[in-house]
Amino acid sequence: MKKSLVALAALAVAGVASAQSSVTLFGVVDAAVSGYSNKSENRFGSATTSRTALTSSGYNSSRLGFRGTEDLGGGLAASFWLEAGINNDEGIGTATGGGLQFNRRSTVSLSGNFGEVRLGRDYTPTFWNDTVFDPFGTNGVGTNLISTASGKNTPGSFQNGFVANKNYSRASNSVGYFLPPNLGGFYGQVMYAFNEKDKYDPAALTPDAPDSQRAGRYIGGRVGYANGPLDVALAYGESTIGDDYFAGATTTQNTWNLGASYDFGVAKVFGEYSNNKVKTDWKNPADASGLSDPGANGWLLGATVPVGPGLIRASYSAVEYRNVVAPGLKDPEAYKFALGYVHNLSKRTALYTSVAYLRNKNGANLTVGGPDYAGDINGHSLTPKSSTGYDFGIRHSF
Amino acid sequence: MKKSLVALAALAVAGVASAQSSVTLFGVVDAAVSGYSNKSENRFGSATTSRTALTSSGYNSSRLGFRGTEDLGGGLAASFWLEAGINNDEGIGTATGGGLQFNRRSTVSLSGNFGEVRLGRDYTPTFWNDTVFDPFGTNGVGTNLISTASGKNTPGSFQNGFVANKNYSRASNSVGYFLPPNLGGFYGQVMYAFNEKDKYDPAALTPDAPDSQRAGRYIGGRVGYANGPLDVALAYGESTIGDDYFAGATTTQNTWNLGASYDFGVAKVFGEYSNNKVKTDWKNPADASGLSDPGANGWLLGATVPVGPGLIRASYSAVEYRNVVAPGLKDPEAYKFALGYVHNLSKRTALYTSVAYLRNKNGANLTVGGPDYAGDINGHSLTPKSSTGYDFGIRHSF
Amino acid sequence: MKKSLVALAALAVAGVASAQSSVTLFGVVDAAVSGYSNKSENRFGSATTSRTALTSSGYNSSRLGFRGTEDLGGGLAASFWLEAGINNDEGIGTATGGGLQFNRRSTVSLSGNFGEVRLGRDYTPTFWNDTVFDPFGTNGVGTNLISTASGKNTPGSFQNGFVANKNYSRASNSVGYFLPPNLGGFYGQVMYAFNEKDKYDPAALTPDAPDSQRAGRYIGGRVGYANGPLDVALAYGESTIGDDYFAGATTTQNTWNLGASYDFGVAKVFGEYSNNKVKTDWKNPADASGLSDPGANGWLLGATVPVGPGLIRASYSAVEYRNVVAPGLKDPEAYKFALGYVHNLSKRTALYTSVAYLRNKNGANLTVGGPDYAGDINGHSLTPKSSTGYDFGIRHSF
Repeated sequence: MKKSLVALAALAVAGVASAQSSVTLFGVVDAAVSGYSNKSENRFGSATTSRTALTSSGYNSSRLGFRGTEDLGGGLAASFWLEAGINNDEGIGTATGGGLQFNRRSTVSLSGNFGEVRLGRDYTPTFWNDTVFDPFGTNGVGTNLISTASGKNTPGSFQNGFVANKNYSRASNSVGYFLPPNLGGFYGQVMYAFNEKDKYDPAALTPDAPDSQRAGRYIGGRVGYANGPLDVALAYGESTIGDDYFAGATTTQNTWNLGASYDFGVAKVFGEYSNNKVKTDWKNPADASGLSDPGANGWLLGATVPVGPGLIRASYSAVEYRNVVAPGLKDPEAYKFALGYVHNLSKRTALYTSVAYLRNKNGANLTVGGPDYAGDINGHSLTPKSSTGYDFGIRHSF
Repeated sequence: MKKSLVALAALAVAGVASAQSSVTLFGVVDAAVSGYSNKSENRFGSATTSRTALTSSGYNSSRLGFRGTEDLGGGLAASFWLEAGINNDEGIGTATGGGLQFNRRSTVSLSGNFGEVRLGRDYTPTFWNDTVFDPFGTNGVGTNLISTASGKNTPGSFQNGFVANKNYSRASNSVGYFLPPNLGGFYGQVMYAFNEKDKYDPAALTPDAPDSQRAGRYIGGRVGYANGPLDVALAYGESTIGDDYFAGATTTQNTWNLGASYDFGVAKVFGEYSNNKVKTDWKNPADASGLSDPGANGWLLGATVPVGPGLIRASYSAVEYRNVVAPGLKDPEAYKFALGYVHNLSKRTALYTSVAYLRNKNGANLTVGGPDYAGDINGHSLTPKSSTGYDFGIRHSF
Repeated sequence: MKKSLVALAALAVAGVASAQSSVTLFGVVDAAVSGYSNKSENRFGSATTSRTALTSSGYNSSRLGFRGTEDLGGGLAASFWLEAGINNDEGIGTATGGGLQFNRRSTVSLSGNFGEVRLGRDYTPTFWNDTVFDPFGTNGVGTNLISTASGKNTPGSFQNGFVANKNYSRASNSVGYFLPPNLGGFYGQVMYAFNEKDKYDPAALTPDAPDSQRAGRYIGGRVGYANGPLDVALAYGESTIGDDYFAGATTTQNTWNLGASYDFGVAKVFGEYSNNKVKTDWKNPADASGLSDPGANGWLLGATVPVGPGLIRASYSAVEYRNVVAPGLKDPEAYKFALGYVHNLSKRTALYTSVAYLRNKNGANLTVGGPDYAGDINGHSLTPKSSTGYDFGIRHSF
């Protein structure tokens, strides 16, 4: 349900006449009982870490939001959107310390025939394909491996201590532009997010980092075509992550991905391919290390099958790292299968369950959730092998 | 006032038809001028620490909440409840750093003829008797001593550095079940809150704590009978608090309490008895210390007397610690008398005042609020004696 | 738009009848692209630090609020106001850690023919003249220098490490009284904010600070007259800031200011004079240092000119410090010119741009925003000279 709080009171401010407008209060509260079991091995045997927990957002991300639109006349409209994520298992938000913040989206927009200009914190263009072409929508144990490996938790690689790409799914301080919706199925957007770093002139003033450091900046775009049963989209983005990686160099994570879905009626199929590469722009090329352009490829195949008021969901996804281990060694890989069922009690309320199995190769250490793999047992180091998990929960939206 | 924001907009999502639904925005803003004066003594004389302050929640706990229910048909309903506590004297919430969080309640429920299943953060069953059978509702200087001593601030005992029982009044990560309301006055609930601790197999993996540690878990229940003027209820709960107490042992705070009220019309009388005990399950019984099962008994007698649009409130409560000092010494005790008057200007708005006097014996150091007792004067140590305080404020709900 | 969520549901609580009431959800989302360039010099040359950023609140302060009023009959009313500031460029609030909190206002009030008594966190009386007689309303690069220098950032002086006056614009834990609105144009308010410090009897108990320390307290008032085109107001306040300044002394920042505006129709002109002085009440007058009563004078001249649906804004402001440097040296001074244009697309939505130029003299180091001045270059120290900046943004209110 979307609640439109229709304006009942006259405006106190004098001046230009105000058009009909509404503010909407909306949200999702999603809770599940979840279990995780993560197994690592060596030639002596195996060890398992496990956890059972009440979790949030197993099917849809829990949230509380406020949004509204004002018709300015002549096709123009202004709108705002403030949306806070909630960890409703504990009643906390996502700020440090647990406070609520509008981390999911915090924007003000001006839109018209030209499209929409949007300012604030919003999803990055490159995240959309990872989530809309995932039958599990990057939530719960079913979340696809592209998202798990490429940045939902840590970017590029878990293997080599790359800095976290805080702009993987969203970017603050951004200016976005969206094509208008009436282009015969074509859609598109671009985003530029300021790094808000200081510049120093002369560069000799620079306190700690080289003048060229631009960590925090994101620039990207996405174009797609949705018509009838088909939806296909291509995205590319560059996220500057490099202040902390190697001093003296600017490091960028470059990502492109292509996703598509086709609804056959009896089933809807999904596919995505993603590629990301971490590039370092060396001030002095002689400083470059042996590892060049580490990164990862990922892909996903998935399907959903409607069954009466329910929906069966399935996906198989993989991630294959590149250049993240010493030359001659095999790069890590991980594969995941997820299966789930959503039973809709209404449009707003659903019961759901998901199960997932993940297999690591060559030292990859991804999980479906829960505790870290055991690293050693009695001094004998272990290699991450497999991770399994389940969610069983309820999603209620309002 | 409860504001029902009736759905005025059609649903955007296609699919199953949605039933009539509403979302309610509600809250309380309660502010008071409060004063506290806490006196400690020795054979040379006495010393007093005092404070005057603007406080929140002297009559009812200040809060802002969002809740709603969706009729799913066939007697089924889904609902959510997100409620944040507010310290409105400073405009802050209860998160570390002062942010708002839904600390008071954060739940999603499915209910029907079978009762209600509720997931998230909620009151513990054992807290209810402490608050509903207290004429002061565990708010302000009148808060009963059972609550003050048993965990509103610190559990079991203030005397011996027991770890705080964070699950005294509420528990996160919980699954609750409530009996349906149509049982001829009988009501009841049970709750299980996950500790969300990791398990290690083999146990040799355990990083720091024994495999049996389950700190954070709560399990409890409550049954009662409310019919006409009578309300009586019994509750029992076990809260695992033990990671930090003695390494190698799991420590549980076990609480049971029995409360009742009877409304004679000219006056309503209240009574409660509470018992809590901190038990340690020693891995190696030889490690057990001399102090066995420290705890506390508490009791309350109270009354409210309606006077026109007002209500006189009075209570006498006590707490008697057990086994918290060395054998041979007398266990600490504390006694408290509270008197108050609430003047209702409407259903939503009231002026109120409360006064309270608390007396400590044998080294108990409870207060009605405000600063700590002075511990020494010119090097001569002092023993806490008495605490007095008042609230004078306004409660406005919406 | 102010949304009145009219009560549709009957009250659950029995008792006194409830009057017609409403709760309003309101807010502002204001975002801008802003740039800053701050230049410092020495005899060898100059250095510049600069930044481009997406910012919040360039025209009006971004916020989300809930407020309501209940008619209690007989002219009496109860009301509440909870208003959180938002940094919508990043989706965060103002709590430590980024959580939302009702930092802008958090009050409960009782009002009637006698006026209004208001409890909680609110604006100080002395802040009002600084903001209502500023054509830029103390937002964005155009913010007047009185506010910049006197406390919006740091009070009294930036030069000498004075402690921040946290009660410059607002005070927590306050009791306020407002004259009723029907006094023929006369208006007025007083505020007392508790310091909530502990008192010790005997004073020998005092743990660290002298018994007289009252840091955190604010006491002040404001009277004014608004009729037709004229608005003029005088305010005075004392803010105790002294715990940390010099041990053994209570330090108070005393501020008075006088502001006025007159609307000629074709233009509205603004003026303000402000004086603040930091006084230290020495326990032992012999401890007093050479610097006596440091402080600052500030003044502002401004104008707004309506142009169709737009508004041109301009201001010139200055701050002249007193007694903040060693005797014989010239006290720092700063001067600022700001010019802006607001284009109203509706009552709720506006595009705006502002530019500002600030010049420092005698070592003043104020900026219009952005990075700090460069302090030295290759070991040669620099003196802050000038700061320039711009905002270009959109303000949307709801």
